[in-house]
Amino acid sequence: MTLLNLTPDEVLATTRSVRKRLDFSRPVEPEIIRECLELALQAPTGGNRQQWHFVVVTDAAKRQAIGDIYRRGWALYRAQQQPVMEKLAARYPERAQTQMRVLSSADYLAEHMHEAPVLLIPCIAGRAEGLSVAEQAGLWGSILPAAWSFMLAARARGLGSSWTSVHLLFERDAAEALGIPYERVTQAALIPVAYTDTPTFAPAKREPVESVTHWDGW
Amino acid sequence: MTLLNLTPDEVLATTRSVRKRLDFSRPVEPEIIRECLELALQAPTGGNRQQWHFVVVTDAAKRQAIGDIYRRGWALYRAQQQPVMEKLAARYPERAQTQMRVLSSADYLAEHMHEAPVLLIPCIAGRAEGLSVAEQAGLWGSILPAAWSFMLAARARGLGSSWTSVHLLFERDAAEALGIPYERVTQAALIPVAYTDTPTFAPAKREPVESVTHWDGW
Repeated sequence: MTLLNLTPDEVLATTRSVRKRLDFSRPVEPEIIRECLELALQAPTGGNRQQWHFVVVTDAAKRQAIGDIYRRGWALYRAQQQPVMEKLAARYPERAQTQMRVLSSADYLAEHMHEAPVLLIPCIAGRAEGLSVAEQAGLWGSILPAAWSFMLAARARGLGSSWTSVHLLFERDAAEALGIPYERVTQAALIPVAYTDTPTFAPAKREPVESVTHWDGW
Repeated sequence: MTLLNLTPDEVLATTRSVRKRLDFSRPVEPEIIRECLELALQAPTGGNRQQWHFVVVTDAAKRQAIGDIYRRGWALYRAQQQPVMEKLAARYPERAQTQMRVLSSADYLAEHMHEAPVLLIPCIAGRAEGLSVAEQAGLWGSILPAAWSFMLAARARGLGSSWTSVHLLFERDAAEALGIPYERVTQAALIPVAYTDTPTFAPAKREPVESVTHWDGW
């Protein structure tokens, strides 16, 4: 196992959504996934209940099945986004250009999803349907921090990953493909993992922090 | 600004929910909060939309108001937990003991919530009610990773924090106290932030990673 020599700030600033720079030909050692999961388990979980599960998909036929489900979800999402993008392009042409680049990179990932040597599906016990906002915060807050910790730990080891969730448009099909007990477990994301073709990533361009910070009130 | 000399793995493993070891008497510099937020903005956000907001509460009267709302939520949650705890104690006495310790530590935090020099409320545009699972994953996945990045960045700087959400049982009251536009913005958590009385934290005891990992299927 090789750790890149990154500081915590560098890891937080450069754990990008890696889509085009994943090296699908290089295998990922199970031990490195285990290490990242061990760190993920240190994330907070509502009431310390630890009702999380992590499905790690490496089998080629199962990755193909999940990739196919992801592509169906992506096509649906892509179609829904079209009018949103057109509105955005009319009002904020520059921002629309960035979004178009993200979409095109996500198109690439969708095409190649099954080629990632590891697909991680973080899950949480319970179903998300019909919950109040407080209950949703408890449910998602008990798995998404762990999922993000996994991606940060992977980045520290030279692995790239990408946070996706449109396969959830066909969550039941993914549950069937992997034997996940759909009636009592909610899938939270689908994270492809692979070595990257470079260890160097720059921070993302973001809106200035002042524009989203509200001191002592909105 | 002082960074502790921690590796990324150490930060991921020791960003504990700090409740009793927060130093309420030591002020937190606004600049350090800004730095943590800047790193938080590097987290993923659905479709790169960055529709997040961060309300930073330092004003004493407003902290008091949020503390009062939190305590109402905590009392309600605590009462709901009673039968759950009793069931757990009957079936898994050891696990129940750990949970009792967490609850008592959380009681302490509830009493003192308003004393934390900074209360952070991460928010996301849109309302969470009535969403499908895929939509919920998109909404919560666009703010919770950033909230967790904030806590990790804070830990790297010697600050402690704690992920809470029971104030959401009275989310509208908190929105009114802070001028948050409730109808179009969902609050995602309430994170008290303070220096800690020690820089040293051990990893949490967790169930073994094997017990929650499913290779190639459940």
